Formats: sequence, structure tokens, C-alpha cells
Amino acid sequence: MSWEENVRKVVPYVPGEQPKSSEVIKLNTNENPYPPSPLVAKALKDYDAGLLRKYPDTQATELTDELAKTYGLEKENIFVGIGSDDVLSLAFLTYFNSGKPVIFPDITYSFYDVWAELYRIPYETKELDADFTIRKEDYLCENGGVVIANPNAPTGVELPLEVIEEIVAFNKDRVVIVDEAYVDFGARSAVSLIPEHDNLLVVQTFSKSRALAGIRIGMAFGQKKIIDFLKDVKFSFNSYTLNPLTIAVGAAALRDDAYFKEITAKTVKTRERMKKELKELGFSFADSKTNFVFARHESHSAEEIYAFLRERNIFVRHFKKPERINDHLRISVGTEEETDKLIIALKELIK
Amino acid sequence: MSWEENVRKVVPYVPGEQPKSSEVIKLNTNENPYPPSPLVAKALKDYDAGLLRKYPDTQATELTDELAKTYGLEKENIFVGIGSDDVLSLAFLTYFNSGKPVIFPDITYSFYDVWAELYRIPYETKELDADFTIRKEDYLCENGGVVIANPNAPTGVELPLEVIEEIVAFNKDRVVIVDEAYVDFGARSAVSLIPEHDNLLVVQTFSKSRALAGIRIGMAFGQKKIIDFLKDVKFSFNSYTLNPLTIAVGAAALRDDAYFKEITAKTVKTRERMKKELKELGFSFADSKTNFVFARHESHSAEEIYAFLRERNIFVRHFKKPERINDHLRISVGTEEETDKLIIALKELIK
Repeated sequence: MSWEENVRKVVPYVPGEQPKSSEVIKLNTNENPYPPSPLVAKALKDYDAGLLRKYPDTQATELTDELAKTYGLEKENIFVGIGSDDVLSLAFLTYFNSGKPVIFPDITYSFYDVWAELYRIPYETKELDADFTIRKEDYLCENGGVVIANPNAPTGVELPLEVIEEIVAFNKDRVVIVDEAYVDFGARSAVSLIPEHDNLLVVQTFSKSRALAGIRIGMAFGQKKIIDFLKDVKFSFNSYTLNPLTIAVGAAALRDDAYFKEITAKTVKTRERMKKELKELGFSFADSKTNFVFARHESHSAEEIYAFLRERNIFVRHFKKPERINDHLRISVGTEEETDKLIIALKELIK
Repeated sequence: MSWEENVRKVVPYVPGEQPKSSEVIKLNTNENPYPPSPLVAKALKDYDAGLLRKYPDTQATELTDELAKTYGLEKENIFVGIGSDDVLSLAFLTYFNSGKPVIFPDITYSFYDVWAELYRIPYETKELDADFTIRKEDYLCENGGVVIANPNAPTGVELPLEVIEEIVAFNKDRVVIVDEAYVDFGARSAVSLIPEHDNLLVVQTFSKSRALAGIRIGMAFGQKKIIDFLKDVKFSFNSYTLNPLTIAVGAAALRDDAYFKEITAKTVKTRERMKKELKELGFSFADSKTNFVFARHESHSAEEIYAFLRERNIFVRHFKKPERINDHLRISVGTEEETDKLIIALKELIK
């Protein structure tokens, strides 16, 4: 017998390509095309590096104070982690111990089933409609917990807040997680439902609308009770995660609400223009409320378009699985100039 | 039934106090009393904040390149995580799946049993000798894996490298983790054993000797095969953890080897002086090869000394459990001046 026989065997996740050349147009990982607020650079310049000799503030107080102000909550309603991946993974570990299957859509963020398997949580997926809509009825059933990305990824489709509330209310005896990574680009947030629903956990991130994919901050919002359970689990096995630079950068970004609104409005405007041009080129897609469009073309395969764009240094995302979406491309919304170049390249292929 | 019934219930860890006042002498969390290398401040000043809009380099290449140079290894021999807590926790998850009990000392780093319980790994603890020495024989047995902190914490005692090698060689069919958080303060590292032993994983940290407890970097060293298993598990469920600021700060610190040697030598010198003075005051302790001394007094209880020092704004660590060590205090090695003040305060109590 060798030690290798007792190693956990997994299928590693392959993240979107991160080409090093700066000449590339990167529309493959839903990063914000704009830099973070200038207050972020200032926070870094002003930071006293000598403080790094000490362990960080486990409560990330400077950051949670700003989050509380920004979202109209109290500090006790907020949990922060290393990106929303960390927050969601901890939430799975904390809340889903009934032994009953946790439910989420068949086409959604690709880590939900990974975390369920990691923590040996049974799960079932519910098929999206042909137009990629979540069918409410599927979530009004006996289950061990519900996870819904809203807007959903990689489809970009928003479920109306009234439907979210109905699902949360029906499932009052288990936790419902609403993963709002893309909510700031035009969807309605479930944060407003928190006062009425103690089983609701809303998860957001700095990676998209705050233009800080690099800093790795995710956060969960909920009533004090549900947040406390999450904190207890986190502190039971890893006390120190967010470093003080992360905390300072996150807080600085939140203090610049005007900049946040400005770059978000720009992305929304570019997205709407991109939709119009893609439609004219023969693409079809469900309406997106995110910073990407999930589209297929009537006569060119996703594979072909992906390869054609890549040769021209334009990177988009092609998910080969599940089969039901392998004719689609997920195209992030870039700057106006990047979008121009994308459309010009597509015209070259298509016309 | 309520959702609360299916929440994971845990005993949260209580980290060492982090008093906010700067007038406090903090000898309770084994932080380095000196600031990190000046190159760290420079790296932060020079950092282009605009890069934070993008996801980080999942391989943390800049950091692993510097680690490879520093430790005479190849990049493929190195894994990095959010502090050694993250690295160790992932190592438990990755390597200990035989169903047989993992073994470690009864008095050691307090998270080993926590991670074992988190991942439902059976474990057994082995009693230290009366003088807090690890008994080699206890680790030459059938088991599911071995974890040894060397030097051990909170005892400070080093196990000779020859004994470590014997344990690693005996257990060739399971993974042996050597946790070297404090190794730089005078103990011999097991990194030199890596070429001969494919079942050995050596874990270190930036938190103590590199004066960067705040930055949260831990690393594991081993042969390519054992490191690859760890990477596969990590990337299967959380691709992006170390942010680019962390990577830049860690790499900068490694580039200043002269500074590292200078502050480490200072701490070792102060520790030896502190030992001498503590002995004269009636304290006894096993010989420490770390940046702390784990001591008891012949006539004053740990509780009494702890309270007396705290009133004078000097914080040391008192573990109330297990009972076998509740007459001990763990006192971090501070600057010369801080040590002066500690000794003066103790003289006030004791003489």
C-alpha cells in the first residue's frame, strides 16, 4: 500500500484563461473593464507596512463598518470572506446538514455541486426552462436547502424579486442562499427581504461591479442569527483570513460611491449597445442583467466563433459542458473600444 | 422543524487578545516584535492598483519563484495558501482518507483536532513526556498519517532532525506533515529530507520569522507528486485565494535575506537573555527553539502572573486547557526594551 491510495482524488477546476499579454481583449472572466476607484490606490500608498507584523483584525471592522453603511445594515448582519467562493463554501458547510438534498439549477455557477461533494452534502439539480428561466415550482418542495444565483450565471437571467421572496417564504425551515455576484448591473437585490426572513443569506462580491476581482472579497448579508452561525464555523477552524491590505482596499472602494455608480452605468450602457449589435449579427440570447451576454449564433458554432476571435486576440468563454449550453458563448462587457473591436471581428466572420 | 436544527454546531476558537492600544506590550501571539523588511513598504508604494480589477495569478508565480530560490527548491515543490492554517487544513483534507486514525501529540497546535473533526478524519493523540518531549516510539505504529509541529507549540521543544527522519521513513505508506512555523528561530528544518522522502510535507509560514503575521501566507514544501495532489484539491473548489498584494509583499520580504537574518538573530539573542532572567526569578521551562518561552513558576500560579502582568499592560498567553499545561504561560519574545519591562514587572511580583 502506498500513501497515494488514500489521497483525495478530484477533478481540478480550470479557470478562464489569463493571457499575460496586454494586447489581448479579455472578455472571458467577467472582470470589470475599468480600474478600481482612485481611493484604492491612495489607500495602498498611505498604508503603514509596519502594521503587517501583527495578526489582522479577525472581524475586519473597517470593512464591515463601510459595508453596513453602504447597504443600510448593521455590522452584525455582515460576514466577509476571501471572495464569494470562500463565503459560499462556508455557507454550504454551515447550513446544509439535514441529510436531505440541497437544490439548485442544472445550469448555474459551476462550484455549487463541487462544494456539495466536498462536504458530502446530497444535492439535486432542477432543469432550467428552454429559455433558461428558473421554474419557481421546482423550488417549492421538500429539500435540504436552496441555492439560487440571481441573476443566474452563465445565463445572465434575472428571477423577479417577488419570486425569490416566494421561494424564501416557502422554504422557511431551511436556508435559502441567493448568490448576487452580478446584481449591481441592473437586477433587484434580496437584501431588502432580510428583515422579514431569518432563513435568507444574500451573497455578493467585490469582483465584478467594484472592479476588484484581484482583491478577493466576498460578503454575506443576513439576520444576526444566521450570520453568527457562519462566523462560528469560520472561527472554529481558520481565524485569520482577510489581511489588512484587503480590508483597507475594500473599505476605500466602498467610500467612493460616485465612482461605483459611474462605472456601473457605463457597463450597463455598453451591454445594451452590445446586445443590439449582436442581435443584428444573428445572435440570440436571453435578456442579461449582468456584465456579460450569453449568446448563440444561428449559423456559426460557438467553437468556430471562439477560435476565430481568439486568433484575433479576443478572448471569450466557451463552456463545453453541459451539452445543453455548448453552443453558447459567454461574452463579458468590456469598454466601448473593446466592444467596437469585438463587433468588427464578428462582422468579419459573419458577413 | 427550524433551519437552525440543521446548522453545524461548533466551538469557536478564541484567538489571543488583540488590544488596540499601542501602549500595550503584546507578548501573547508570537508576532515578530520587528516590522517587516523595508522592501515590503516599497512593494506596496510601487504597486499599480489598476491591476486589481483582474483575477489574480492562481499560481502566485512571483511568490513561488522567490520561495524556490530561497529554499533551494523548484517551483513545483511549493504550495502556497492563506496562512499555514489554510495550508494545513487543505493537507488534512487531501491526504488523510484511509479511515485509520491520524496521530499527533496531546499537547500541540490546537487546530489539528479541529481540522480532523471538520473533515471527519479519525485521530488519536499521543501523550508528551513529563518534560514535554515527543516520544518517538509512539509514532512508529500503524496509523492514517502523522502530524508533528517541530519545534512543537506551545512547548517550544525541538525534536532532533534524525528522529523526524526516522518517523518519516517508518511511515512511508502515509503522509507525514512537519509543521515548522517556528523553525527559523534555531531548529533544523526537514526541507533537507524532501529529496529522499515522497511522503513528507513540510509546512512553514510568514507569520513569525518574516514579521508578516498580517499578510497571511503559509507554504508547503514537498516532492512534486505530493504537492500536485494538494494543488488539485485546492483548485477543485477555490481557485483564487492569494491576492496580488499578498504575492508582491511576500516576494519582497524574501528578497531581503539580510534583514531576515538580522531580526531573527536579534530575537534569538533576546530569547536567550529572557531565559536566563526567567530562570533567576524561579521559572522553569523546557528549552525553547522558538520566539516564545513556555514557563511555569515554582510558587506563583499562571493565573496570578497573567493577571498581574495584564494590569501593567503586558499581555502574555495562558491556555487553561488541557489541565496538564494550565500552570504554564506562553511568553513571546519581544524587543530588548519590552523584555526589560517584562522582567521588571515580574521582579515586582516575585521578589
